[in-house]
Amino acid sequence: MGKILANINSVEDLRKLPVAELPALCEELRQFIIGQTAEHPGHLGSSLGVVELTVALHYVFDTPDDRLIWDVGHQAYCHKILTGRKDVFCTNRCYGGISGFPRREESVFDAFGTGHSSTSISAALGMAVAAKMEGNTKRSHIAVIGDGAMGGGMAFEAMNQAPYRDVNMLVILNDNKISIDQSTGAMSKYLLSITASPAYNLLKNRIWNFFTFRTNHPNRLTNAFSKMGNALKGWLLGGSNWFQSLGYRYFGPANGHDVVYLVQTLKALKSLPGLKLLHVLTVKGKGLEAAEKEQTKYHAPGKFDPDTGEIIRADSMEQPPKFQDVFGNTILELARKDDKIVGITPAMATGCSLTIMDEVFPDRVFDVGIAEQHAVTFSAGLASEGFIPFCNIYSSFLQRGYDQMIHDVALQKLPVIFCIDRAGLVGEDGATHHGSFDLAFLRCVPDLIVAAPRNEHELRNLMFTAYNNAKKQGLPFVIRYPRGRGSLVDWHNEPVTLPIGKGELLRKGDNLLILTLGPLCKTVETALESLAAESITPTLFDVRFLKPFDTETFLNLAHSHPAIITVEDGCEKGGLFSEVAETLENNGMDNTIFHIAIHDRFISHGDIPSLYSEVGFDIASIFNTIRKAWITATTH
Amino acid sequence: MGKILANINSVEDLRKLPVAELPALCEELRQFIIGQTAEHPGHLGSSLGVVELTVALHYVFDTPDDRLIWDVGHQAYCHKILTGRKDVFCTNRCYGGISGFPRREESVFDAFGTGHSSTSISAALGMAVAAKMEGNTKRSHIAVIGDGAMGGGMAFEAMNQAPYRDVNMLVILNDNKISIDQSTGAMSKYLLSITASPAYNLLKNRIWNFFTFRTNHPNRLTNAFSKMGNALKGWLLGGSNWFQSLGYRYFGPANGHDVVYLVQTLKALKSLPGLKLLHVLTVKGKGLEAAEKEQTKYHAPGKFDPDTGEIIRADSMEQPPKFQDVFGNTILELARKDDKIVGITPAMATGCSLTIMDEVFPDRVFDVGIAEQHAVTFSAGLASEGFIPFCNIYSSFLQRGYDQMIHDVALQKLPVIFCIDRAGLVGEDGATHHGSFDLAFLRCVPDLIVAAPRNEHELRNLMFTAYNNAKKQGLPFVIRYPRGRGSLVDWHNEPVTLPIGKGELLRKGDNLLILTLGPLCKTVETALESLAAESITPTLFDVRFLKPFDTETFLNLAHSHPAIITVEDGCEKGGLFSEVAETLENNGMDNTIFHIAIHDRFISHGDIPSLYSEVGFDIASIFNTIRKAWITATTH
Repeated sequence: MGKILANINSVEDLRKLPVAELPALCEELRQFIIGQTAEHPGHLGSSLGVVELTVALHYVFDTPDDRLIWDVGHQAYCHKILTGRKDVFCTNRCYGGISGFPRREESVFDAFGTGHSSTSISAALGMAVAAKMEGNTKRSHIAVIGDGAMGGGMAFEAMNQAPYRDVNMLVILNDNKISIDQSTGAMSKYLLSITASPAYNLLKNRIWNFFTFRTNHPNRLTNAFSKMGNALKGWLLGGSNWFQSLGYRYFGPANGHDVVYLVQTLKALKSLPGLKLLHVLTVKGKGLEAAEKEQTKYHAPGKFDPDTGEIIRADSMEQPPKFQDVFGNTILELARKDDKIVGITPAMATGCSLTIMDEVFPDRVFDVGIAEQHAVTFSAGLASEGFIPFCNIYSSFLQRGYDQMIHDVALQKLPVIFCIDRAGLVGEDGATHHGSFDLAFLRCVPDLIVAAPRNEHELRNLMFTAYNNAKKQGLPFVIRYPRGRGSLVDWHNEPVTLPIGKGELLRKGDNLLILTLGPLCKTVETALESLAAESITPTLFDVRFLKPFDTETFLNLAHSHPAIITVEDGCEKGGLFSEVAETLENNGMDNTIFHIAIHDRFISHGDIPSLYSEVGFDIASIFNTIRKAWITATTH
Repeated sequence: MGKILANINSVEDLRKLPVAELPALCEELRQFIIGQTAEHPGHLGSSLGVVELTVALHYVFDTPDDRLIWDVGHQAYCHKILTGRKDVFCTNRCYGGISGFPRREESVFDAFGTGHSSTSISAALGMAVAAKMEGNTKRSHIAVIGDGAMGGGMAFEAMNQAPYRDVNMLVILNDNKISIDQSTGAMSKYLLSITASPAYNLLKNRIWNFFTFRTNHPNRLTNAFSKMGNALKGWLLGGSNWFQSLGYRYFGPANGHDVVYLVQTLKALKSLPGLKLLHVLTVKGKGLEAAEKEQTKYHAPGKFDPDTGEIIRADSMEQPPKFQDVFGNTILELARKDDKIVGITPAMATGCSLTIMDEVFPDRVFDVGIAEQHAVTFSAGLASEGFIPFCNIYSSFLQRGYDQMIHDVALQKLPVIFCIDRAGLVGEDGATHHGSFDLAFLRCVPDLIVAAPRNEHELRNLMFTAYNNAKKQGLPFVIRYPRGRGSLVDWHNEPVTLPIGKGELLRKGDNLLILTLGPLCKTVETALESLAAESITPTLFDVRFLKPFDTETFLNLAHSHPAIITVEDGCEKGGLFSEVAETLENNGMDNTIFHIAIHDRFISHGDIPSLYSEVGFDIASIFNTIRKAWITATTH
């Protein structure tokens, strides 16, 4: 650790430093983040991009009394390090350690917990209105939001309301031209048009420096500058500033890697009351050459060499592929056969491997940016014209497109195919990112088909089945699967079309019936292989479809199996367990049910083995549940 | 019916008329809508506002091949009348009749079903991209969207994507300065700033008329005009056009009540490829003086006198109040006691009666416009600063704020109080507006309290309980209740604080246990009064809280009652029935359950008695279910 950083244990320590030492501190912070993240993987690129901005913000503003909110929050590593969490930073994203996102429970400096995108301005506005009602005119409220997140509808809703409220709020637009993948959309183009005009920037920087730094009255003059700057901008850029048209005082674009300049700028803005927007230009991955060059790859690179940036691959033993890559390769296979197939994703093309299709058919892949609501209804529009959209959204982000799924897709019976990625527990990203609720919030929606594959072959089978169903104008079809690897090295089967609403009997046993939905089936199979030696021989039935549920087969099996275990990687209220309990009640059956599911509480972050053992998804817990249920079943 | 309209049975008939006859047709259409809506209540104001626009659109464009999408869709009456539904228009919103909103099932002219706000641009963009992929460069795609709906985040997401796609799309911004209540937000102010500049408008109209109407080359010159107009606008309005900054070719503002002018304008725009935005000014309620004057009142006025506009009140017999007014009066009572109480609603202040508080404490009521996502997180921001927000959202619209409820409220345990209005079946607004799913999609979320009052006293008790809970930094609290009247004329009790998670035993009986959640309890009570004469004497328990569920009391009762009926005005998968089935299974109980709930299908529109009888909520069905269950219970 660098020697300046070694002595910074609080924001007070930071504020005692002379401005001239801040650049060196930033360099030390950057090296500290690189070193830590190389060993304990995390969101590298975005945190490196805001080192100077973070230092300047805590240096100038009176945090935690001034409220600072990090949109999305994966860029808050420097913030955490400066606000008392330097020594525990090595536990970042670990089970029991600090979170990779701001959390109110973790620190008073984390004014608002984040994780999903585009929430910061709404939250800051709520706080700013609260301060106003309490007569506190001094407190600053700062939302730091990326250009990708600014394209999310929710950010716009808040941007649209703020000028109406007469509050003290500073929106800092952290413009790095990238979400995880390249930013898309008009906003992004527009920001480029502002920043790409060299005549304007050169002139503006000269004027800014002249007025801001060479006088003793920065405020009045910053104000005057702002007006002049705006007029100038209108003239040079052809007369359109989006933010001003909404009623914001726009400042920038400012170099986000010049900490001294940022400190001076923020000081000027701090004493300016009202609603301001500061447009800051940063480079994602700044300071690690490899990360600057390949920003998507270094968004969250896993372990890497801190000096060269070289990403350290896990052992090269042949492993089962990721479900994501199976999705990506399979949609490409399908797309080659039928040119009506299109792929849609809200800013997750790399994460979900839709990039595989994009490389071959770029005109048929639509990354719509951070815009889940639009992604769903845009897909519905395509489906209404006879196209077959595969809309890939992460489970926890689909919560943003829930109304559209009900109102625009299910109600109109439009055959959109939803591939719900990151279903179940996701690991280190934690509570905001676990895909716990989709089975419950989708099962209640009429006219949806909801399925989950137990392995790679089944994912391919379900994708083919969904495609054939859409081709015949069938109902909308949801396929949900987790982050990460499946269980079959030889994943590339010849897909078959499955009967919709029918499960598969994997083991014919007796006494105890185990129903699985999704890839925990594999763990159950492993357990059953061992348990056979103890003469514990349950029946194993992969239900495959939560909706329509295979009631007929289930009831036939239930009659001969007094005890049942349901196994699903979703929440315990509203999913498979509920469906089974309801079905038994509706049919006057009195089997005993055990259920393995995510408990009804928010599950924190950590490695998957720790989380699985917490909720009973690990092999030891599954052994125990099966043994217990077997005893019940055989002594019934 | 007017004599021109009498001969219009299709859009082909319309297109045969000379332009000069269109103003008279518009007048006839307006009178027809007024006459019909006076007798068969519906959304009057917005449909009157777009008569000329609708006529001009169908006159100029080749619908249904050109795709026309009405955002929200309650303004589509004239559209329905012109597209073959004139003779069935008298069944508008009736059970078995045509829908009050566009529906794909109803007509090929309804290119996309609507009901919720801000979806039209996403859908139109999906269709436009489809046309482009098919090489169809001629088809027009038109989204007609109000200024209120344009403030919804979803509309922005689509607006932000469209310039990136190079498609043929015309967005018509129907600017009437009102959603249902007055529009709020920066966008609204901004539109006013464009339209309120008389110098600009006068000049612009002259130039527009000169170029558009007096030449034989309208397209090239409209194009030239557009460029000139934009430059002019930049100069006169100080250099900021929001739409242009996003990459739209902006036209307008245009007088939306001059049908001849609209026809000429749309003709010019039709032949102009690419992405265009036409800003049209209309008056909500146009043509009925009373409706123009009181636009909120005449949004959906119920029956009225077609000549004077006077609203016809139902008989003046003393009736129980609406739940909405009980909410409004009770929040005001609470707000008088504690100045930390604030009210938030996304554009539903009148509908939910938050106006009652607004009249007394305008500074503590926040109508944030059509922005459910922002409404929820803005409330979370206020709660994080110690305020006590009552956030009132309709059940079906909360589907838009679902992620925020999980991610910003529940996960952070912020004590926001949600009053979920329009829960259950809403009647004539139909499938898009029924509040069917909230119990299911909220029960699966950890750390939420979910309750429903059976009557007005209970609503007040729950609001007081939620307030006291928030005061002690308790968990977020949801209270859901239906549209319309409760059952108690004398509604103004002295509220008491209820124990959270405890139900109320209303009748101690035997054999059969009836569990209710919400106001269907009253129907059950009425049935039980009659059934006592037949010696059918079930126990009646109002569970009050779906979450936390009163498991202890329930299990005690379940032991002595072999049969159970669950009664809830929500969907059958995931709500009370599921909770009860799961609880029985978790406790090894084998009671027989019957359930009364909304079936797992989308329920259409119509009067409440018809809908209730369809789903078994009417007294006759409830009688039958109780009798059937009683037989099961007593012969167990």
